[in-house]
Amino acid sequence: MKEKLTVIKVGGKIVEEEQSLKQLLDDFAAIEGFKVLVHGGGRSATKIASQLGIESQMVNGRRITDGETLKVVTMVYGGLVNKSIVAGLQARGVNALGLTGADMDVIRSVKRPVKEVDYGYVGDVKKVESDCLSTLIQANIVPIMAPLTHDGAGNILNTNADTIAGETAKALAKHFDVTLVYCFEKKGVLRDADDDDSVIAHINAEDFKQYVADGTIQGGMIPKLENSFEALSAGVSEVVITSSTDVSATAGTHIRK
Amino acid sequence: MKEKLTVIKVGGKIVEEEQSLKQLLDDFAAIEGFKVLVHGGGRSATKIASQLGIESQMVNGRRITDGETLKVVTMVYGGLVNKSIVAGLQARGVNALGLTGADMDVIRSVKRPVKEVDYGYVGDVKKVESDCLSTLIQANIVPIMAPLTHDGAGNILNTNADTIAGETAKALAKHFDVTLVYCFEKKGVLRDADDDDSVIAHINAEDFKQYVADGTIQGGMIPKLENSFEALSAGVSEVVITSSTDVSATAGTHIRK
Repeated sequence: MKEKLTVIKVGGKIVEEEQSLKQLLDDFAAIEGFKVLVHGGGRSATKIASQLGIESQMVNGRRITDGETLKVVTMVYGGLVNKSIVAGLQARGVNALGLTGADMDVIRSVKRPVKEVDYGYVGDVKKVESDCLSTLIQANIVPIMAPLTHDGAGNILNTNADTIAGETAKALAKHFDVTLVYCFEKKGVLRDADDDDSVIAHINAEDFKQYVADGTIQGGMIPKLENSFEALSAGVSEVVITSSTDVSATAGTHIRK
Repeated sequence: MKEKLTVIKVGGKIVEEEQSLKQLLDDFAAIEGFKVLVHGGGRSATKIASQLGIESQMVNGRRITDGETLKVVTMVYGGLVNKSIVAGLQARGVNALGLTGADMDVIRSVKRPVKEVDYGYVGDVKKVESDCLSTLIQANIVPIMAPLTHDGAGNILNTNADTIAGETAKALAKHFDVTLVYCFEKKGVLRDADDDDSVIAHINAEDFKQYVADGTIQGGMIPKLENSFEALSAGVSEVVITSSTDVSATAGTHIRK
C-alpha cells in the first residue's frame, strides 16, 4: 500500500498577509503525514514591480513576463515568499525545503510558444523529477514549491502554481497515495454562483458532465474541474477544491472518478 | 580516507555581471569532485533597495539590515542571485540546489546582540547541520548557498557569506577532506599592497606570525587569515585565498597549518 501524501496549492493572497500566512503555516504544520506546499505570490510581485517602475501587463488574467518582470517574480516567488514560508514552517517543527523547478532539476518546462499572445518568459511544464522529490519526502523533508521552473538552458520561467501543483501531484502518484488540494477564494464548487455556501460536497465524472449540461457549472470552473479529472486519470486519488483557509480540506468540493 | 570536497565562496560582483557570472559557472562546473558554492550579492541588493527607495546604511563596510532591507536581501540573495546560479549550473550539467540556512534547517543563527552598533536582522552562525548537507552532497547534489540563515523562530537573518563558507567548511570537515576557497578582488595575500602580483603562494601559522610581526600582513587581511587558521584548526585541510576568476584555486595564497 502506498503511503498518503497531500499536495496543497495556496494562492498569493493568503501567503502575502502576515495574519493569514501565520494561520496557513499553523494549519499546514498540523497536517499529518507527507505533504508538499505549492504557493503563488502574484500580488506581492505586482506590488514590487510597480515600486520598481515596472508595469505589470495582464492578458486574460495572466501575467506577461518580460525580462524585467521575470527578475521580479524570481525575487518575490523564489526569495521573499518562499523563504518566509520555509522559515515560518521551520519554527513550527516542519523540515521545509524551498524549491523552484531549477533546484535539483525538479521541474523542467518549455517556454510557451507565441500564438496570439506572447506571454514572455512563461513555462509550460514538461517533466517533474518525482524520484528525487519522493526521496526527500520519504526523509521527512517538506518541499515548498515556488511557481518557477527552468528550461534546462539556464533560464528560469514563470509558471502557473495550479499547473505545478497538478503536475507534481500526478508525478508523485507513482510513489504515494496522493490527495491534491486547491485552495482558492471560494468555499468550493458552488451550485449557485451567488450563494457562497452552496458548495457541492462531492463530484464524480458523471455528476460533472450533468452539471455542465444543465449549466450549474460554467466559466472558469470548467477547466479547473477538467484539470482535476485529468489528475485523477493520471493516478491522483482525490482532488479537493476548497477555501484558502481550509488547507486540511475538511470542507470544500471533493472530486473522485 | 575521506573524499575531497571544495567549498568556494565568491563575492557579489562576479555573480552580478552577466559575463563574469557565465565564466564563473563554466569554471565552477569544471571543478572535479564534490563541491559547494557560497555566494554574495550585496551590489544587487544595494541597487534594488535604492530603486525601491530604501537607503542602504553601511557601518564599517557592513550593511545595517532593517526590516525593509531584510526583505530586499531575502529577495535578491535567496531569489534572484541564487536561482540564476542554480539554473545556470543545471544548464551545465551540475545538479545544483539553492539553499538558505532556513531550508532543511541547514544553518541556524542568532540575531547579533546590539553593542555599539545595531546591525538589525543580521545573524551570527550558531550551527551548521552537516549530516543533511553531507547526504545531499554524497548524492551528487551541489548546494548553492545564499548568505541568509534563520533563527529557528521564523526569522530570516542576513549573514556574512565568508562566515557561512567558513562554518560550512568546518562542519563538513567531519565528513570530507575539505578545501576552502575564498575568491576576492585581489590575486591572493600580497607581500606588497601596491603590487598586485606580489602574491604569497604559501603561508603556514609560523609564516603568518612573522608576516604580522614585520608588518607585511596588516589591516583587513589579518582577521581573514585568522579565520583561515581557525578553519584549519577545526579540521579543514587547506584554505586558499585567491582572485574571483580563480575558483579552481590553481593560483592565489595556499594556507596550511
